[in-house]
Amino acid sequence: MLQINGARLLADLRRLAEFGKYKTGVDRIAFSPADVEARLWLRDRLAEIGLTAATDRYGNVLGTWADAERAVLIGSHTDTVPRGGWLDGALGVVYALEIARAARESGAERPVGIDVISFQDEEGTYLPCLGSKSYCGGVSEADLAKARRTDGDPLLDALDRAGFSGEPLRAPEGRHVAFLEAHIEQGPRLLAAGSKVAVITGYAGIRRMTIQVHGRADHAGTTPMSMRKDAGAPLFRFAAWVGDTFPSLGGAETAWNIGNVVVEPGAANVVPSRTQLSLEFRDGDLAVLDRIEAAVRDKLAAIGRDSGVEVGAELTARIPPTRTDAGLQKILAEGARAAGTEPLVMQSGAGHDCMFLGAIMPASMIFIPSIGGRSHDIDENTDDSDIVFGCQALANAVQILLDRA
Amino acid sequence: MLQINGARLLADLRRLAEFGKYKTGVDRIAFSPADVEARLWLRDRLAEIGLTAATDRYGNVLGTWADAERAVLIGSHTDTVPRGGWLDGALGVVYALEIARAARESGAERPVGIDVISFQDEEGTYLPCLGSKSYCGGVSEADLAKARRTDGDPLLDALDRAGFSGEPLRAPEGRHVAFLEAHIEQGPRLLAAGSKVAVITGYAGIRRMTIQVHGRADHAGTTPMSMRKDAGAPLFRFAAWVGDTFPSLGGAETAWNIGNVVVEPGAANVVPSRTQLSLEFRDGDLAVLDRIEAAVRDKLAAIGRDSGVEVGAELTARIPPTRTDAGLQKILAEGARAAGTEPLVMQSGAGHDCMFLGAIMPASMIFIPSIGGRSHDIDENTDDSDIVFGCQALANAVQILLDRA
Repeated sequence: MLQINGARLLADLRRLAEFGKYKTGVDRIAFSPADVEARLWLRDRLAEIGLTAATDRYGNVLGTWADAERAVLIGSHTDTVPRGGWLDGALGVVYALEIARAARESGAERPVGIDVISFQDEEGTYLPCLGSKSYCGGVSEADLAKARRTDGDPLLDALDRAGFSGEPLRAPEGRHVAFLEAHIEQGPRLLAAGSKVAVITGYAGIRRMTIQVHGRADHAGTTPMSMRKDAGAPLFRFAAWVGDTFPSLGGAETAWNIGNVVVEPGAANVVPSRTQLSLEFRDGDLAVLDRIEAAVRDKLAAIGRDSGVEVGAELTARIPPTRTDAGLQKILAEGARAAGTEPLVMQSGAGHDCMFLGAIMPASMIFIPSIGGRSHDIDENTDDSDIVFGCQALANAVQILLDRA
Repeated sequence: MLQINGARLLADLRRLAEFGKYKTGVDRIAFSPADVEARLWLRDRLAEIGLTAATDRYGNVLGTWADAERAVLIGSHTDTVPRGGWLDGALGVVYALEIARAARESGAERPVGIDVISFQDEEGTYLPCLGSKSYCGGVSEADLAKARRTDGDPLLDALDRAGFSGEPLRAPEGRHVAFLEAHIEQGPRLLAAGSKVAVITGYAGIRRMTIQVHGRADHAGTTPMSMRKDAGAPLFRFAAWVGDTFPSLGGAETAWNIGNVVVEPGAANVVPSRTQLSLEFRDGDLAVLDRIEAAVRDKLAAIGRDSGVEVGAELTARIPPTRTDAGLQKILAEGARAAGTEPLVMQSGAGHDCMFLGAIMPASMIFIPSIGGRSHDIDENTDDSDIVFGCQALANAVQILLDRA
């Protein structure tokens, strides 16, 4: 088995966390000076261990095992959300660095090598998964031109400031036998289950709906209740129904959220004229998503009829569920068992670069525990021993892959 | 009976609406140049008809019937909300002007005169009912010093800019036999009932509560439902309960509103960490207000227990119900009948200057119809014939008062 060096792994993770350090976390949004420095640092580390290191105009960083015609590709991303955690995608990138380094040090002749990659802007500061989208098929000039940060800063300006160059890197046809990514769980299941590694079966599909109610603003003191067209009450009725009904409507892993509510004009003494909420629901089963959406539409129609105000729904996002490669799932589970844990088998509630890689090669992921499930936050953390354990589990899987390739 | 001149009344109302004209409405917030001009215009009109006209440092405008030791005081306010309606308080001021003018023209000797007043900042641009509060008892320098417009502009700066001077006007002891105010209804009841005049029995008490729920932000894709502390669901449950329960909890005239909702951090894919709503309820009966508040607190405690998140409530406003003078109500009703309508007898859901006058002298109000109940809006309007009718009804009541005083 490939034997990773835990102390070296942790030292590299801590070094990487210095770029954009913010309190106990990291502020290293895509194309920020800290992000650029971190990517150049990674490029140098990849060259140091004997890989052919390159960056492209987006700041994707690739280390190619030039001695082999085929390779396992491992990686993730080093950009973060604002004031994010020190692990997140950085963990997967440093796992890849350490596993490639361990493989090169072992001196064994390898017909199949290990390539390492860090994708740009997975977090979507400008364009979600820009790097992996580009690597797997390209991003159109039109999409590049319209991508902006929330504050309006255009992606094209950010590209200029960052100063990267080079043709966009593309996955070479026929080279990669698989893509593997490691990430913290961003949830509490592993720690609750007492397992050290989760093997990811797929990504939950996501539907996002914007529910709007149009009523009429009236003075809340002088307009009798019976003469109002209150845009608030029907929205609250719907929101309460979601909480009451979704537990029986979905499956065991169905997740939902009402994360945003708008009430206008928003004065205590004015009857709401317009209200809005965003409803999101996720499940790995397309049929469950369809069933929930149909129930939502039925309920809204009923509320509209009962309340006499205009109730509307718009589907603003529809991401189908996807599955990771079944063969890789088995190999990742074997690697985890070889490290000494029975892996949890679960779907991912969040999207990752690996989804895009899965469209062009066998791809799958492992998760390692997150303390308290904290993520996208400076409190994000994982025990050192769990970090080292997860890397060895992934290295074991890579060894199995190399042996069988 | 005092006979008012409808054409002259309408002409004065239209002239007053030129000050700060905004589309079909008026933007004449307290202390704005338009407000100051309108007050100086009124002062000149009062002087023209033979009253002793004065302003004070706040811009209160008073016309005193100097020939009499006692007087009926009539008036309202000429300031508006931003982009408000042309009637609102202006109606009551021009009614007072027209009734005093008609009385002076009639040439009859009057041991009891008619004083006319326009109070400053009833709408609370800086300090709600500043003028009537000052007239009835004074406003402290501390309250003046801390009063600010929503955008931060201090009242003391606005006073300087407006350039009014003179000691604050105070109600002279023993002079006024009554205060009468006319206003548009700001609601739809009169038109629905087919009556031209409402006699106001009192002002609904108001309670305003801020309900807050504290949970924990989590990734809405990766955190299982059972492991969340969602601050949203308990709030929506409470809001839906308000809509379900208040109709049976209150009385026939109970009014309530959830006019403002905050959900933080407000992202579609983040479980709400903090939510808040403002609940307001109004009724003329203190016992009803107490009963509703107790039920709200019980419900919140139950929701807190069930949901396991922190649910809190703060009472942010508590205005007790008040009654207008019963004798004046009868006289106003007689005046309306003499004009040819059976008045609606109702409470006011909104507060008015008259509430403060009621603390130092017999005081009551009439309402006239508002088309569509529109108010605080440029669409606010009343048929010319209803405007004239209401003024004659009020003049009749003043005549009865003068005869009996």
